[in-house]
Amino acid sequence: MSAVHHGLKLDPSSREDARRRLLSIRGHVEGVLRMLEDEQVYCVDALKQIKAVQGALDKVGDLILRSHLRDHVVSAHQRGDEGEIVEELMEVLKYR
Amino acid sequence: MSAVHHGLKLDPSSREDARRRLLSIRGHVEGVLRMLEDEQVYCVDALKQIKAVQGALDKVGDLILRSHLRDHVVSAHQRGDEGEIVEELMEVLKYR
Amino acid sequence: MSAVHHGLKLDPSSREDARRRLLSIRGHVEGVLRMLEDEQVYCVDALKQIKAVQGALDKVGDLILRSHLRDHVVSAHQRGDEGEIVEELMEVLKYR
Amino acid sequence: MSAVHHGLKLDPSSREDARRRLLSIRGHVEGVLRMLEDEQVYCVDALKQIKAVQGALDKVGDLILRSHLRDHVVSAHQRGDEGEIVEELMEVLKYR
Repeated sequence: MSAVHHGLKLDPSSREDARRRLLSIRGHVEGVLRMLEDEQVYCVDALKQIKAVQGALDKVGDLILRSHLRDHVVSAHQRGDEGEIVEELMEVLKYR
Repeated sequence: MSAVHHGLKLDPSSREDARRRLLSIRGHVEGVLRMLEDEQVYCVDALKQIKAVQGALDKVGDLILRSHLRDHVVSAHQRGDEGEIVEELMEVLKYR
Repeated sequence: MSAVHHGLKLDPSSREDARRRLLSIRGHVEGVLRMLEDEQVYCVDALKQIKAVQGALDKVGDLILRSHLRDHVVSAHQRGDEGEIVEELMEVLKYR
Repeated sequence: MSAVHHGLKLDPSSREDARRRLLSIRGHVEGVLRMLEDEQVYCVDALKQIKAVQGALDKVGDLILRSHLRDHVVSAHQRGDEGEIVEELMEVLKYR
């Protein structure tokens, strides 16, 4: 677990914000599931809903990323773990 | 509703496949929600889970897109709705 | 060469438009090259220019894609090459 | 100019590496320009070349980003410009 290794943690207010958004995303996923129960559903309508869920997930990702940059990345040099911090960040950003 | 307009629908087997994958994605979102209940959670661990959910959503999107191309787009010229089919597809692909 | 195989070609006006945009993109790349000759150049200024070039390339890609959808994909069923058309399109869209 | 404001600069070896890669990208763009002179060029062949150029630009972007993280972002707290560093980074990453 990287968490244990670092002793770094997500700040409480970003964590709460991320949770609230993910609850809404879960609801949105359930909406798409119901949509797919309809035998008449049109492909493009389903695609649009999936893109909307991805947009909402991007926003959760941005909020956690900003909090990580602000609380952990900008002070890595002082802690002395900058090599690890940079590589794991590059790894996560690759999937964007 | 585009579905009504077109009278086109998502083929049953892609619809079932998309539903099964979305059920698993809902479970994954719930896993991230539980992860965020942990006050010690590390930002990068949360980011990785969100990227994994997005990867799974990309796969659902690809499967619906392929089915749409195969069942509706390649035959648009015969139906005579190619103008609309192309523009709505460009619109959806823009968000990729 | 897929071109020979298909006997399909990019329509002349999209080809001209793509060429004109790529000439401007080449000029933009040369601008970034000159920017990088400056020993004082700031990373984020270079990153912004690279993102701008990518945005311009996205537009060329969109214009060729729209032309391909309109001229070749929507009529694939009539030609009978829909299987190949769909798979090569999915392959190209994966990199978006 | 952010560069003047910060007094921060791209490290010489990343700058050289970025320049070398951009020279090769300029050559690739010229190759696509010649390809588009061919009246028989197939849309998907042109799209593939554009995606290849974008992949090469992504690599230049990654190399400058890694250098920026390593040389400037991880030490922002010590310099005291972390607010600005985080916001401009979020802005640049948005376009990825």
